[in-house]
Amino acid sequence: MEEVLDRAAQAAREWGGTSPDDRAAALDAVAGALDRESAELVALAEWECRLPGDRLRAEVGRTTFQLRSFAEYLRSGAVNGVVIDHEDVHWPPGPRPDLRRMLVPLGPVAVFGSTSYPFAFSVAGSDTASALAAGCPVVVKASHSYPDLADRTAEVVEEVLPKGVFALVHGRRCARQLVLDPRIKAVAFIGSSRVGRELHHLAATRPEPIPFYGGFGSVNPVFVTPRAVAKRGGEIARGFAQALSQQSGQLCTKPGLLVVPEGFAGDVAAEVRALRAEPLFNKLVAKRFETGVEALSAFLDVLVEGGPGAGGHAPTLLRTTAADILAGHDEALDECFGPVSVVATYRDSNELLELAAALPGQLTATVQGEDDDVLPELVAELTGRAGRVVWNQWPNDIATTPAMHHGGPWPATTSPFHTSVGVRAVERFQRPVVFQGFPSHLLPEVLEDNR
Amino acid sequence: MEEVLDRAAQAAREWGGTSPDDRAAALDAVAGALDRESAELVALAEWECRLPGDRLRAEVGRTTFQLRSFAEYLRSGAVNGVVIDHEDVHWPPGPRPDLRRMLVPLGPVAVFGSTSYPFAFSVAGSDTASALAAGCPVVVKASHSYPDLADRTAEVVEEVLPKGVFALVHGRRCARQLVLDPRIKAVAFIGSSRVGRELHHLAATRPEPIPFYGGFGSVNPVFVTPRAVAKRGGEIARGFAQALSQQSGQLCTKPGLLVVPEGFAGDVAAEVRALRAEPLFNKLVAKRFETGVEALSAFLDVLVEGGPGAGGHAPTLLRTTAADILAGHDEALDECFGPVSVVATYRDSNELLELAAALPGQLTATVQGEDDDVLPELVAELTGRAGRVVWNQWPNDIATTPAMHHGGPWPATTSPFHTSVGVRAVERFQRPVVFQGFPSHLLPEVLEDNR
Repeated sequence: MEEVLDRAAQAAREWGGTSPDDRAAALDAVAGALDRESAELVALAEWECRLPGDRLRAEVGRTTFQLRSFAEYLRSGAVNGVVIDHEDVHWPPGPRPDLRRMLVPLGPVAVFGSTSYPFAFSVAGSDTASALAAGCPVVVKASHSYPDLADRTAEVVEEVLPKGVFALVHGRRCARQLVLDPRIKAVAFIGSSRVGRELHHLAATRPEPIPFYGGFGSVNPVFVTPRAVAKRGGEIARGFAQALSQQSGQLCTKPGLLVVPEGFAGDVAAEVRALRAEPLFNKLVAKRFETGVEALSAFLDVLVEGGPGAGGHAPTLLRTTAADILAGHDEALDECFGPVSVVATYRDSNELLELAAALPGQLTATVQGEDDDVLPELVAELTGRAGRVVWNQWPNDIATTPAMHHGGPWPATTSPFHTSVGVRAVERFQRPVVFQGFPSHLLPEVLEDNR
Repeated sequence: MEEVLDRAAQAAREWGGTSPDDRAAALDAVAGALDRESAELVALAEWECRLPGDRLRAEVGRTTFQLRSFAEYLRSGAVNGVVIDHEDVHWPPGPRPDLRRMLVPLGPVAVFGSTSYPFAFSVAGSDTASALAAGCPVVVKASHSYPDLADRTAEVVEEVLPKGVFALVHGRRCARQLVLDPRIKAVAFIGSSRVGRELHHLAATRPEPIPFYGGFGSVNPVFVTPRAVAKRGGEIARGFAQALSQQSGQLCTKPGLLVVPEGFAGDVAAEVRALRAEPLFNKLVAKRFETGVEALSAFLDVLVEGGPGAGGHAPTLLRTTAADILAGHDEALDECFGPVSVVATYRDSNELLELAAALPGQLTATVQGEDDDVLPELVAELTGRAGRVVWNQWPNDIATTPAMHHGGPWPATTSPFHTSVGVRAVERFQRPVVFQGFPSHLLPEVLEDNR
């Protein structure tokens, strides 16, 4: 570990000083290497993560697309955040000097791989790609869920990058050590809020506090209006059941709270009851899921009793009311990872809006609506509480596009400003520096005139 | 206080929902009101802050310029950070929905006014202007140094803004209360690191952690190369003496550490010895200054003994060596607010670079150089440690321009990503939200097509 961190610290200067074009070429090389080894990696992941091959092949495609998007962003020059103000002795509040701003890398970054996405948010995933794009060496802490896949992926990545720029470490003890080490300058974490909050606290209170980008997940509430039920209730119930069970509910964007008019819960239950049991990632995830459902069942009515059986875990559906949540029985607002969700009924649009206003920060919030009067107020309320607001779709999929914001207010994440998906993810690992009055030959190349 | 916070929380929705053009008009109105009341405000400040009238009039000019810059930025539309990706079923990693990203305000912001700038970084200063521009109500905690000026300025501001959008509070007890109150969603603080770090810790560890933008100051090292001494030693010594004594050293950008070749310290001392005594802001600042100098004098040689006398405090110059600092005697690396600085001599360029590499995070770092070999490495080292790197000028003045970055790595500030000067200061109080699949009539106006 000492050696890994030393190498990362030593590599930081050189890697941070490479041109954006050189870093783009390196990211393309990583993408190319993953493509070449895709068949072997997918086979390993099928075995270790219990996920279907098609799903995994698509995820490798997403991962290499991400890497190449960052490469493209690097080549566009936008990544440098350059702003140039030439000297102006007539500048109104007083003469101004020549000022040239750019973004520079923070230094070595620790990345904690996610369980749900063994490729796209893991060893060579979005966090790693964006930190490398910023010019930061990366030390990945492997997820305990797929140690062999992590090792093999790391070999593929390491082979095409300069020495010291990338490393993989294993083991729970590494986590604290990485976050506390003075050579580490930022942390990206996807995982449980239990572990994540502890690490976040360490990062915020160490002698030199560092940014900690934790994505913890949320219940991703879905609000269904009366007119939407009247017009396409069946379609909504089916869509919800599918969204709840996608990847056995093991997604940070799973809708964990469905807010519906009284009388619609039965239709939803019928669809959830028809779902098949599917395997969970591993025993630890299954154990945590069972404990979580047990805790929820102590407070809420069970509408559909899923749980373990042949072939895996069948989805569970619980029931509460908006009034109960507003009265302080808010167990339904805590995420439970896996195939479980809570349906909460409301009596009128006041209750709907009150519930929306009582939500903690969310990654996503969804509205299934038609031309109901309550919509403008509901959308405004959700905009104040979520990183992504979805209209008449489901929140699960996170498109890799420039406009995407995958993040949200606390407690969904630890930094409401930053996205972990899309090219802007690179901003998490860059800070501005401005050069004042410098001659051209001493400026970084991207700040020279006539570029 | 309760009432102030309630009004701010209530105002947040309405103010956050105003159009950028409306907020621009409000900022222009604040600027206009300050211009109209300028004579009275300056007279009050001369009396309360012991600063010269010309200096204060220029600062009011800077303050209204800042307000109008944010207004212009609002009208330009750039403030909204809009990115639109239309639906694309052929998007390579999988079909993408319509995604529209914009920036939304965080909610009520607490602003702690600075002692050094009673206008530009105070009641209606850059922090207040940028938070208002973002759409956040502001509660200002007045500096204890000019309560009457703060009150009068607040009256001028409050009169032209909607009710609840702006308020001023006094008293040390307010500080903790503001930072801990759940209605406050971000804090901007300029002041001593002693108080600032305590408040930062509260902000980072409260049940809902919030961003805390603390600007604590730094020693702002100036590195002088041998060739620069040979070519223009006299000019550099005079320039340094002027920079050290500007506003009696009561600036967060005062050069507090001058790193020079052996043999040059005497020339610098001669210039510092010739400086006049000037008054400090008030007794508390004077007391803290005297204590700070006493502490430094216990460890370092006194080259020029300034201290209290007729007309105020004359500048003090202390002396150490790069070798001593590198051996762990690093008292010279801690800021002492007021007219004092430390000159550190180095023997060769290795020692110069080692010292640069040993610096904690700085607001600014300056090089006085000619065509010395050491420059590229020195500049690279300082770029890794400062928010602004200055070439053959002095760091004191902070131009209000789009490229300016007034910030820097810990411990100079608490957030290396953000500037407190220039239009980008608004980003501290905004977070992204992306709307997925929304019909035009439910989108915020700035996200509609054909804008």
